[in-house]
Amino acid sequence: MYKEELKTKIDEYLKEYFLNKGSYNKTIYDSMGYSVNVGGKRIRPILMMLTYKMYKNECMSILPMACAIEMIHTYSLIHDDLPAMDNDDLRRGKPTNHKVFGEAVAILAGDSLLNEAMNVMFDYAVEHNKAETVKAAKLISNAAGAEGMIGGQIVDILGEGKEMTLDELKYMHKNKTGALIKAAILAGAVLGGASEDDIRKLDEFGEKLGLAFQIKDDILDVVGDEKKLGKKVHVDAEHDKNNYITFYGIDKCKKICSDLTNDCINLLSDIQKDSTELQDLTKFLLMREN
Amino acid sequence: MYKEELKTKIDEYLKEYFLNKGSYNKTIYDSMGYSVNVGGKRIRPILMMLTYKMYKNECMSILPMACAIEMIHTYSLIHDDLPAMDNDDLRRGKPTNHKVFGEAVAILAGDSLLNEAMNVMFDYAVEHNKAETVKAAKLISNAAGAEGMIGGQIVDILGEGKEMTLDELKYMHKNKTGALIKAAILAGAVLGGASEDDIRKLDEFGEKLGLAFQIKDDILDVVGDEKKLGKKVHVDAEHDKNNYITFYGIDKCKKICSDLTNDCINLLSDIQKDSTELQDLTKFLLMREN
Repeated sequence: MYKEELKTKIDEYLKEYFLNKGSYNKTIYDSMGYSVNVGGKRIRPILMMLTYKMYKNECMSILPMACAIEMIHTYSLIHDDLPAMDNDDLRRGKPTNHKVFGEAVAILAGDSLLNEAMNVMFDYAVEHNKAETVKAAKLISNAAGAEGMIGGQIVDILGEGKEMTLDELKYMHKNKTGALIKAAILAGAVLGGASEDDIRKLDEFGEKLGLAFQIKDDILDVVGDEKKLGKKVHVDAEHDKNNYITFYGIDKCKKICSDLTNDCINLLSDIQKDSTELQDLTKFLLMREN
Repeated sequence: MYKEELKTKIDEYLKEYFLNKGSYNKTIYDSMGYSVNVGGKRIRPILMMLTYKMYKNECMSILPMACAIEMIHTYSLIHDDLPAMDNDDLRRGKPTNHKVFGEAVAILAGDSLLNEAMNVMFDYAVEHNKAETVKAAKLISNAAGAEGMIGGQIVDILGEGKEMTLDELKYMHKNKTGALIKAAILAGAVLGGASEDDIRKLDEFGEKLGLAFQIKDDILDVVGDEKKLGKKVHVDAEHDKNNYITFYGIDKCKKICSDLTNDCINLLSDIQKDSTELQDLTKFLLMREN
């Protein structure tokens, strides 16, 4: 399956990236590398590469841009796990960054991963001097910030122990998880030179896929297997967090998730390119157990 | 004095930037805006603008790029002040971010300021579609990361309570404070279209100015006035931190600082442009009391 080959390439790039770097500052690379290479499905970079591949014959040329988005995702997990945030000891079955390196280093490692992602994107933009490159990087950067991922995180943090409105919950989900997933897809499309019409369809696809992904996460937090997930379950209930399950119950959530997946497949089928691999990935994300 | 006018423009831009933004995520803008607008000398953006102005008739056109570097500087202060880092309650005479908004929001506000700086630079790069813009942004991004500011911070954090070698101390100072100061100058030069020869001189100027700035900070931590500084003094001694004073003593440090300033003035005089304003700023930084 092509997805697995891509994952291997992404894993290799990210492993190599943090090796044998630094001098007196070596610890920061060890700490960044630890969290980036502790595992993960690499969904965001794979989505970017498969979307790009619909428009070009290959997708290895955008590997650095794809890995930059994984660095951003990883930094958000390191900071999310901190004692002042979700206070998690385990992530992907391994001790969280601050459990291994201490809180101060974990804060700096998160900062540094976000910064490194930007370095990679600026490097790529200098190397490939095209307007599309900067546009794609801007999409990713915007999606990670206060009007995207961090916007969702702040609503999540402030909403603990309080009852949210459905609109607030939707805002949180759309941004906390959805924004970066959608940006991965759109960045791949922009880099690949997709038409405006295709970008509109992929925007809707990204929006729905991001939502399905987050609802599936909520479902797994209730019915998932701790060993397969590599992290504790029932975390949302413990932290008294709002999510789709608390609003709709588990059965309705499974239905919403499945309907969204169907919508995604229809949107992809409507694009006059070979979207088989993206469709397979979309179905895989619905069926996943971690 | 022109420097004061620039500071007013920078203050206005940064105040305006975070006003009336956000919906459910409004708290993140309040928290970012609080720390950015709590005061500060705006040295880095002013350095960038004055360097640019040597090559162009004006410098207001790069105001967003200049303010982006101030956002990066501010994020580093918010995270530095966190309980897991320096655990400071006061900054510029006001409660630190986490004292006002709590630790979780302060972590996210720092993340978000770094991210916002990148958004501003990508926006600027999309708007001004030139190779120089992306190169300047890359300089800033690189200087903020693991091979720059964060590299210095990690050495600082890991060095607490341990004796550093002089090389290690130099590495720390060069990167923790110097990297971003030098990048501000070089980004201004690159945006302004400076010659390679000038950029080499400005590189050396930035290196020496950054070092002088940090040594002056170390001096003020020993002999400074807590009220004028707006923060506690004797912090390095309390945290058992290494700095230039512990190595050389205060008198030799004053001499080094003054010599570096003279070198800076000579380097600027050697550039065939009007560097009066940059020279004035360099002298001001030596004489400052906060």
